Amino acid sequence: NSELKVFTLNSNPALAEEIVSNIGIELGKCTVTTFSDGEVQINIDESIRGCDVYVVQSTSAPVNQHLMELLIMIDALKRASANSINIVMPYYGYARQDRKARSREPITAKLVANLLQTAGADRVIMMDLHAPQIQGFFDIPIDNLVGVPSLSEYFEEKNLDDIVVVSPDHGGVTRARKMADRLEAPIAIIDKRRPLPNVAEVMNIVGNIEGKTAILIDDIIDTAGTITLAANALVENGAKEVYACCTHPVLSGPAIQRINDSKIKELVVTNTIPLGEDKKIDKVNQLSVAPLISEAIIRVHERKSVSILFD
Amino acid sequence: NSELKVFTLNSNPALAEEIVSNIGIELGKCTVTTFSDGEVQINIDESIRGCDVYVVQSTSAPVNQHLMELLIMIDALKRASANSINIVMPYYGYARQDRKARSREPITAKLVANLLQTAGADRVIMMDLHAPQIQGFFDIPIDNLVGVPSLSEYFEEKNLDDIVVVSPDHGGVTRARKMADRLEAPIAIIDKRRPLPNVAEVMNIVGNIEGKTAILIDDIIDTAGTITLAANALVENGAKEVYACCTHPVLSGPAIQRINDSKIKELVVTNTIPLGEDKKIDKVNQLSVAPLISEAIIRVHERKSVSILFD
Ligand SMILES: Nc1ncnc2c1ncn2[C@@H]1O[C@H](COP(=O)(O)O)[C@@H](O)[C@H]1O
Ligand SMILES: Nc1ncnc2c1ncn2[C@@H]1O[C@H](COP(=O)(O)O)[C@@H](O)[C@H]1O
Repeated sequence: NSELKVFTLNSNPALAEEIVSNIGIELGKCTVTTFSDGEVQINIDESIRGCDVYVVQSTSAPVNQHLMELLIMIDALKRASANSINIVMPYYGYARQDRKARSREPITAKLVANLLQTAGADRVIMMDLHAPQIQGFFDIPIDNLVGVPSLSEYFEEKNLDDIVVVSPDHGGVTRARKMADRLEAPIAIIDKRRPLPNVAEVMNIVGNIEGKTAILIDDIIDTAGTITLAANALVENGAKEVYACCTHPVLSGPAIQRINDSKIKELVVTNTIPLGEDKKIDKVNQLSVAPLISEAIIRVHERKSVSILFD
Repeated sequence: NSELKVFTLNSNPALAEEIVSNIGIELGKCTVTTFSDGEVQINIDESIRGCDVYVVQSTSAPVNQHLMELLIMIDALKRASANSINIVMPYYGYARQDRKARSREPITAKLVANLLQTAGADRVIMMDLHAPQIQGFFDIPIDNLVGVPSLSEYFEEKNLDDIVVVSPDHGGVTRARKMADRLEAPIAIIDKRRPLPNVAEVMNIVGNIEGKTAILIDDIIDTAGTITLAANALVENGAKEVYACCTHPVLSGPAIQRINDSKIKELVVTNTIPLGEDKKIDKVNQLSVAPLISEAIIRVHERKSVSILFD
C-alpha cells in the first residue's frame, strides 16, 4: 500500500488538524502564500512521490480563492508524482448552481467538477451535496458522506420529548424523513406558496406540530431567511420550542442577526465550514465531522467500503 | 459570417467600451453579480445563439475572482450555443508561474490554459505574454499582440534626443532590441549580479548611457523594485534622464511609492490593466491598446491574418 499523506489548504485547517490526529499522522508540509499582486503561490515542502495524498479544502468563502488554491495544489501534487490525489471537500461551493434555472445561465457546479478533474483530482470525498446529481457531474469516484447521523445523535442525547422533524421546504423532505427515522419521530413540512404574484408568501404547515418540540433540518443555511421564517411560523402555530440544524453553516450576510432575532432556541451545525469569530454566538453549536471524515479516509486508503458511513 | 458580439466582465470594462466603440457595435448585455456568500452569478441578457462571441477580461487582481468570472462566463456562453468563444485577455495572470523553478512547484500558467480550454474557450487574444512559450500550453489558436509599437510611437512623438533603450534584466533584451530598432537607437542592459551569497547585488551597466536619454522597457511592472533600482543606477552612472515603460502595469504593493521616489521622469504603460485611482499619479501615463485590440478582433472575425499587428 502507498503511504497516506494529508495536506490542508486555507479553508479549514482546524478540521484537517483534527483529522490527522484521529488518523495518528502529522499534517503534510506545504506553504500557501500570496504574491504581492494576489496570485497564489504553493510550495510542497516534503516529497510525496508515490504517496496517496488527501487534500482538505472546502470551497467556502472566499470561494474563488479557495477553489484556485485547491486547483493549484492539485497541479503541484500531480507534477510531484503523487500516486493518487484525493480531495476532501466537506463543503462543495457553487453546488446551488447545478442546473439552468433560466436561459443562458451557467452550470457552475458542473464547471467546478470539470476543473477539478482537469487539474488532476482522482477522487473527491464530500458531505451532503446540495443535489446528489452533482456526483454525476464527475467521471471519478465520489464519496458523499452524510451529516444526518451526527446531527441526530446530538439531539438523541438531549432526550427531548415529543419531537417532530420539520423540513423548511419541499426539497428537504427526504432528509427530514431520515432524521425522523433515527429519532423515531413524525415529520412536518413548511409548505410555502405565493397565492398570487406580488403577494406575500403564505407559510402553511403540513403535519401536526402543536405542543411539540420541532427540529428544523436543512443541508445549507446561507442567509438564514428560510430557516428563521420557518421557525417563527412553527412557534406561531403552536410548537413548544424550535431547534434548527444543518450540515453546512454558510451563514452569510444577515444570517447571524436573523438567527439571533428568531425564535430558534439552538442552531446545531457541523464544521464542514469553520465559523468565524463573529459567528460564534451562544445559540450556535458546532459539531465536528472529523471522526466521520477520518474514518472515510482510512477506509478509502485501505480499499474498504465506505458505504457503512452513509446511514 | 456569424454575428460578432463583444461582452465585458469586471476586470476591464472601460477598455471593452473603447473596443466596441471602435468596432461600431454595442456591448453585449450580461449581468455579473455575486451572491451573499461571494459566489459569482452570471446572466447573459441577450441571445448569442450562433454568434462569434468575444469576452474582454484580463486576469489582473483580484486574479482568482476575475479568472472564475471568465470561466463561468465561458460555461454560460457554451451552453447558450455560441458559434465560437473568443477570449480577449490583454493581461494573462499567473504567467510568471510558467515553469518548475523548484521541486514540487505547480505550473499555474499551464493550469490556467487547461482551465480555459476545459470551460470551452476556442481562441485567446493576449498581449505580450510574459513567456511566449505559454502559447504552447494551449491547443487552441492564440494571438499574442505586442505593445512595443504603441510604446515606441509614443516616444517617437516626444522627439527625444540621443536615446538609449535599456533592458532592466537579461530576460528583456529582445524586447529592448525591438524598441531600439523602431527608435533607431542603441541598447544597454542592466547586468545585475550577486558577487557572493548574502552580499548586495551589483548593478553593472553594459553599454554606453552617459549623457543619454534612457528608456527602460519591461513587459510587467509589478512591485517596481527592478525598474526603480535600474533607473537610479542609470542616473548615477551618468544618464541625462530616465523614462520607463511597460505593457502591463500590475503596480502592486509598494510600486507607486517606489516610482514616485525614484529617478524615473515618466512611466508609460498601457491599459491592459486599468489603473485604480490611487495609481493615477502625475508620473504615470497610460496609452490605450483598444485600437490594436479592435483591429485584431475585426481581422480574426473576418478571417484575415493578424500577423501584421505583431510588428
Ligand atoms: N450562492 C448562492 N446564493 C444564493 N442563491 C444561489 C446561490 N447559488 C445559486 N443560487 C440560486 O439558488 C437556486 C437553487 O437553489 P435550490 O433550489 O435550493 O437548489 C437557483 O435559483 C440559484 O440561482
Ligand atoms: N505573481 C508573482 N509575483 C511575484 N513573483 C512571482 C509571481 N509569480 C511568479 N513569481 C516568481 O517569479 C519568477 C519568474 O519570474 P521571471 O523570471 O521574470 O519569469 C519565479 O521564480 C516565480 O516564483
